Amino acid sequence: MINLEDTIVAVSTAQGAGAIAVIRLTGPDSIIICDKVFKSVKSGKKLVDQSANTVHFGSLIDEDKELDEVLISIFKAPNSFTGENTVEVSCHGAPYIQQKVLELFIKNGANLAAPGEFTQRAFLNGKMDLSQAEAVADLIASRSEAARRVALQQMKGGFSNELIHLRERLLNFISLIELELDFSEEDVEFADRSQLVDLVNEIEHLLSKLINSFSLGNAIKNGIPVAIVGHTNAGKSTLLNTILQEDRAIVSDIHGTTRDVIEDTINIEGITFRFIDTAGIRKTTDAIETIGIDRTFSKIESASIVVLMLDINDPNEKIHEAIADVKNKMNEAQQLIVAINKIDLLTEDEIAQRFDQNKFKELSGSDAIVPLSAKKQIGIELLSEELIKTINLKAVDNDEVIVTNARHYEALKRSHESISRVVDGLHAGISGDFLAQDIREVLYFLGEITGGEIQTDEVLGNIFKNFCIGK
Amino acid sequence: MINLEDTIVAVSTAQGAGAIAVIRLTGPDSIIICDKVFKSVKSGKKLVDQSANTVHFGSLIDEDKELDEVLISIFKAPNSFTGENTVEVSCHGAPYIQQKVLELFIKNGANLAAPGEFTQRAFLNGKMDLSQAEAVADLIASRSEAARRVALQQMKGGFSNELIHLRERLLNFISLIELELDFSEEDVEFADRSQLVDLVNEIEHLLSKLINSFSLGNAIKNGIPVAIVGHTNAGKSTLLNTILQEDRAIVSDIHGTTRDVIEDTINIEGITFRFIDTAGIRKTTDAIETIGIDRTFSKIESASIVVLMLDINDPNEKIHEAIADVKNKMNEAQQLIVAINKIDLLTEDEIAQRFDQNKFKELSGSDAIVPLSAKKQIGIELLSEELIKTINLKAVDNDEVIVTNARHYEALKRSHESISRVVDGLHAGISGDFLAQDIREVLYFLGEITGGEIQTDEVLGNIFKNFCIGK
Repeated sequence: MINLEDTIVAVSTAQGAGAIAVIRLTGPDSIIICDKVFKSVKSGKKLVDQSANTVHFGSLIDEDKELDEVLISIFKAPNSFTGENTVEVSCHGAPYIQQKVLELFIKNGANLAAPGEFTQRAFLNGKMDLSQAEAVADLIASRSEAARRVALQQMKGGFSNELIHLRERLLNFISLIELELDFSEEDVEFADRSQLVDLVNEIEHLLSKLINSFSLGNAIKNGIPVAIVGHTNAGKSTLLNTILQEDRAIVSDIHGTTRDVIEDTINIEGITFRFIDTAGIRKTTDAIETIGIDRTFSKIESASIVVLMLDINDPNEKIHEAIADVKNKMNEAQQLIVAINKIDLLTEDEIAQRFDQNKFKELSGSDAIVPLSAKKQIGIELLSEELIKTINLKAVDNDEVIVTNARHYEALKRSHESISRVVDGLHAGISGDFLAQDIREVLYFLGEITGGEIQTDEVLGNIFKNFCIGK
Repeated sequence: MINLEDTIVAVSTAQGAGAIAVIRLTGPDSIIICDKVFKSVKSGKKLVDQSANTVHFGSLIDEDKELDEVLISIFKAPNSFTGENTVEVSCHGAPYIQQKVLELFIKNGANLAAPGEFTQRAFLNGKMDLSQAEAVADLIASRSEAARRVALQQMKGGFSNELIHLRERLLNFISLIELELDFSEEDVEFADRSQLVDLVNEIEHLLSKLINSFSLGNAIKNGIPVAIVGHTNAGKSTLLNTILQEDRAIVSDIHGTTRDVIEDTINIEGITFRFIDTAGIRKTTDAIETIGIDRTFSKIESASIVVLMLDINDPNEKIHEAIADVKNKMNEAQQLIVAINKIDLLTEDEIAQRFDQNKFKELSGSDAIVPLSAKKQIGIELLSEELIKTINLKAVDNDEVIVTNARHYEALKRSHESISRVVDGLHAGISGDFLAQDIREVLYFLGEITGGEIQTDEVLGNIFKNFCIGK
């Protein structure tokens, strides 16, 4: 699919009008193509004669007419992102000018880059493995501190290192087994079976850990789905507005760019919480009282966290019944937070009397009981703390390897199935050739992740097609 | 307002997510601030020790944690856009990362740049005059070939050169007059009055030319307003859709970025034609027949070009009446194009019989008579030719100085008023001190354009506040 002899070009900065835009070329002829259309302020200066990692000021010339004043940065193979000769052209940011510059380079021999082609070339040229390349896309798409950190760690090889390490131990293992097969007539055992059992168990344990990290990784990457449920008059939408508003005020303080990205999500300690189908929840607050909480039960299923919103002024029976009802609809993996709203309407004595924390804990089976006033913005901080408590932040803080990519997750699961067969096989004392086959499978699936095993154009195409153009 | 001792920072690329984004710092401490947070891949490497116009790869570090991998370009005063030390940081394009990078630099001593502050600094540091600085904003906002060319020419000093030349000639003039005043008791005439009359006439002529170029300049900058009017069944919206579709197909072929910018505008030979209030015109096509063309008359007023759309199958009286009606509502500066639609429904003989070009020309007072079929896309090219004929493209092609800026236009008009008083004064033989006073006024207004005369913070603030941030 990708011909590394071609030189490609794309706009690498965000679409639309900016002060400047960066158009990037990579490939063997990128500097030569630029020389065809670039006129330096210093007459006679040629880009091909310039050192790597230098910037040059001048004009782009299209059919003897000046198109724009530009800055051109030169990078030379193999010391560039793609490992190829690369040129970055910084032009004025009018979309019209961006388009004309792009057309100019295409007219002079460059091809329009496919989505992700720069990164794919970096992979094909051995500048990074496949999981690192995929992390580039994650980094560009990161919308929270945790997502950025995990993606950056993966891009820098944190994830691959662990996998390569695993794979090396397995290769060591299989070489001994296969040596035995060569001497099969002599019935020797080069691989100490008890040591092998230990090793395979350790590997199985590591794979399990990585597989288990995916639920956190997925939450970090895509946000944690939270459903706020409760009676129609409990103040759900007030709470949602209060939470969202607080967060937005902070994040949009300095730079406007994130505003359009933020939907009904909030960001607590770098983790994104995504309020699912809140439009539906909002609508419920407009509906007639009698509809009750039943309507919102359907939202519970897709949430990792359920915030049950109750009105402290409601009768005890109504409150208790709601807790029991919601708990009943949840599965074990889901977390319940009970928020008792409207405490501002009561005196401290009344709260002490009505707010029976132990009873709530007993009924909900959850320690997360939060008295609050959505309207007066009391207790919001405590609610945030309870939301973040549900996440294993230590794993992020310790820069543990966290799997965020569904493709990696699938490959790890398949590796795990194979290694489990190895564990079982060792228990059952199966022959070396069957053992070797299962271990080869594990090696193959792990190789899929880093791209060490041969990857077809189709597989690569699927991985890179969702990249943005220009990266 | 602007303290050149400060170092400022802004995102210079378009808002939103891209593959990469460029954050720019300028000011005396820009390189020092970067060194505080930049860790090169080569350990111990400091940016302050590096040559100008070089690019460096490494990481931004925020409180001992890596924020992103970046490329950093260094420019040193006075050889930069602003004339100051400048750093361009190319980071991954996630809006979240852009914001964190911005925050990091602010935390380390940079101030957030005001809109246009980079360009304003370039002006304050003598890198460009005020009209050049204003052209930077025009270039970034340019949406057509002509707009780009005129802005680029102005940015490179084409406009200022003419003004500076004018001003020099005036200065030469006034020095002679003022010399006379010094010798007023002796009643000498250093300035030959007939030569002065020639010179002032020439200047008046040049100012008139520049002032007259503004209608073209304004059209180039903001697009030329075109109204398509006609009977409700004449096919106006079909024509509009046909024109727009053709153009969009061309311009959005290669790059998606311009699509959202293009509203109901088309681009012919680099000139933008803007179809005004077409929603209204469209609505008319849905309204009942009897409403006729009267409704659309109100649109005519704001148009530079009126395309009158007629149905060749209508009775002659109806057609002739419509031409006379529309012509009646137009002023002399407006151009009329008569488009005779639905020729595809007739045979060539029938067309020859019904399409009475001379009669149409006589009635409309216009040479632009276009037989077409909006539906079958016949004659659209001829219509485009007639649209572009209304524009003095030669002025653009010859890179003549064209005034596009309303502020310059106002200053030129005031200069012209003063120079006219000089012309009159010379005719009337008024005394040298009155002459000198009028000439000083001309000099002042011309100086306002290039910024040669002292500009207050308020004036500068007004000019730069509409710039985008990061430029």
